[in-house]
Amino acid sequence: MPVTSISWQSNILRIIDQTKLPNELVYLDIADIPTLVEAIMKLRVRGAPAIGVAAAFGVVIGVQDYEDDASKKTFFSLLDSTVQQLRNTRPTAVNLAWALESMREVAQKYHHESISAIKEKLLLKAKKIYTDDQAINRKLAKFGANLIQDNAQIITHCNTGALATVDYGTALGSLFYAHSCGKKMHVWVDETRPLLQGARLNMWELQNEGINCTLICDNTAAFVMQKNHIDLCIVGADRIAANGDTANKIGTYSLAVLAKYHKIPFYVAAPTSTFDPTLTSGNDIPIEERPKEEIIDSFGCRTAPQNSKVYSPAFDVTPHTLISAIITERGVINSPDTHSTLELLKKP
Amino acid sequence: MPVTSISWQSNILRIIDQTKLPNELVYLDIADIPTLVEAIMKLRVRGAPAIGVAAAFGVVIGVQDYEDDASKKTFFSLLDSTVQQLRNTRPTAVNLAWALESMREVAQKYHHESISAIKEKLLLKAKKIYTDDQAINRKLAKFGANLIQDNAQIITHCNTGALATVDYGTALGSLFYAHSCGKKMHVWVDETRPLLQGARLNMWELQNEGINCTLICDNTAAFVMQKNHIDLCIVGADRIAANGDTANKIGTYSLAVLAKYHKIPFYVAAPTSTFDPTLTSGNDIPIEERPKEEIIDSFGCRTAPQNSKVYSPAFDVTPHTLISAIITERGVINSPDTHSTLELLKKP
Repeated sequence: MPVTSISWQSNILRIIDQTKLPNELVYLDIADIPTLVEAIMKLRVRGAPAIGVAAAFGVVIGVQDYEDDASKKTFFSLLDSTVQQLRNTRPTAVNLAWALESMREVAQKYHHESISAIKEKLLLKAKKIYTDDQAINRKLAKFGANLIQDNAQIITHCNTGALATVDYGTALGSLFYAHSCGKKMHVWVDETRPLLQGARLNMWELQNEGINCTLICDNTAAFVMQKNHIDLCIVGADRIAANGDTANKIGTYSLAVLAKYHKIPFYVAAPTSTFDPTLTSGNDIPIEERPKEEIIDSFGCRTAPQNSKVYSPAFDVTPHTLISAIITERGVINSPDTHSTLELLKKP
Repeated sequence: MPVTSISWQSNILRIIDQTKLPNELVYLDIADIPTLVEAIMKLRVRGAPAIGVAAAFGVVIGVQDYEDDASKKTFFSLLDSTVQQLRNTRPTAVNLAWALESMREVAQKYHHESISAIKEKLLLKAKKIYTDDQAINRKLAKFGANLIQDNAQIITHCNTGALATVDYGTALGSLFYAHSCGKKMHVWVDETRPLLQGARLNMWELQNEGINCTLICDNTAAFVMQKNHIDLCIVGADRIAANGDTANKIGTYSLAVLAKYHKIPFYVAAPTSTFDPTLTSGNDIPIEERPKEEIIDSFGCRTAPQNSKVYSPAFDVTPHTLISAIITERGVINSPDTHSTLELLKKP
């Protein structure tokens, strides 16, 4: 069974601290905003859907200790400040902004009610975002599993399993579902530098599920494609523009180009909450840059001269023309473009 | 000035221990074969030309303490055993086999002379291989520098500088020479997982020479190509088949495919001693596989579950059709194929 990466425990958000994997399975209980902000920024909780869920409960945490009979104006200031702090943690994944906006809308909708009632509604909304993620993953996984034949050779990048969501996964979720239906497969796992979500998290999740997998350095994927019959590549997403251009973990675009060259289908698996139709194309997706120490101090020792210039974009953008299909909980968009993407977003 | 990575000190081979870079510049004095074998296998000395030079002096070390008035038959047994031990260290770089064969031929040529005289000839040959490497690098670098325009944006992979040769370099040597002629450039340096020759060695050498450079994870090269005007990619080689197919550090083939997709010239810089005309194509080049710990226990830190299956080919093969030109000390082969490659090998 995939793990539960994030859960609400009365008035505390409990997360698996993913920075400790694969060596330790450690839970972190979060009861205040500074701790949650740090946890998101340091990738103790990561994965676009998981960040969204964490942020939703973050709003609950931010206001839950506010006195019910105090000023409502100040309550809304506190709410805004909480939303802003969480919003600033990481700029690329749209789920974060989407979840926070949903929570803000709920507070706005019920602004005339008592503070106690608003808090109640916020908690209900966060819980709904949570249970929706669980249901959405499972629906998406069924569509995804249809694209995976028996005995498939698959390449994947970054982690898109239970650790990236509440408790199932998107791209990896599709593999879990296919596996549970009896399909055999072998997964080549990009280690995913610099933070090694592939090595540390994917290998852990896949082996826990008993799925055959082999770890490779990111630079080895091309050689694997050259020497082996690869059936498909499947990855997640952090933000998808109206035309299907997809921002995902750095290295995804590289894999997509290699897949195109080797004539291998390239699939993106993402819930519709990952889409940002306000952006015409991927050119407009903000790309987070992360500290150089994650590259040159990542193994507990220095691996480049201290004063080295380092470029560390955390994401890249794959043009929709390199994407064979986007798998969502509402269905599959083949050869995605603006028309087909917006059509799917209209569906219930 | 580029460093001297390897030198002969009376009867000792002195190498920079490259496993300690960039944090420490440490020299290792080698006076016996087991130490040299370990140094080659653990990449304390690495880079195809440097391995060849080290192996040549290795033969000298292997026989230098043999009694001059003892049995010649036993002397040649010792020579063969030394050659064999060194030959077994690493299978892919042809320079190793080529240097050992050259040394064996010298011993064979002078087999009728005294043991003392044979040892003398072996030492002279090793020294010639050494000085030839120095001269060849500098000739090659001039041809390479011609392909580098002023203000070039360059991507490179693995280390091909003074640390990969005696004291100058091949691909990086071309950059050094262009720089010494006053050309400005900016080099994007693939870190080159798993052993990080890019991060640890290239960044060190380039910064020592005052060349503008930025470190990236290997998976970021595609994004850099997408977002920046890149003028060329330049890499070294460990073995080149008759048709120009080139084996080089794992990740080179990936870079070549990406360069093709982005219409960026892709150059291989390698002395003619890297060619192996006995191999028709790259399919026949043996690819070394290295221990999984280099990936999952990098620098003492565990980054994947212990029982993970790991695939770690140390090299990959770039088909000649993806190579814009091979730069050698005898000249440049544009769009290399069997005909043009063999033509160049006939030249003096």
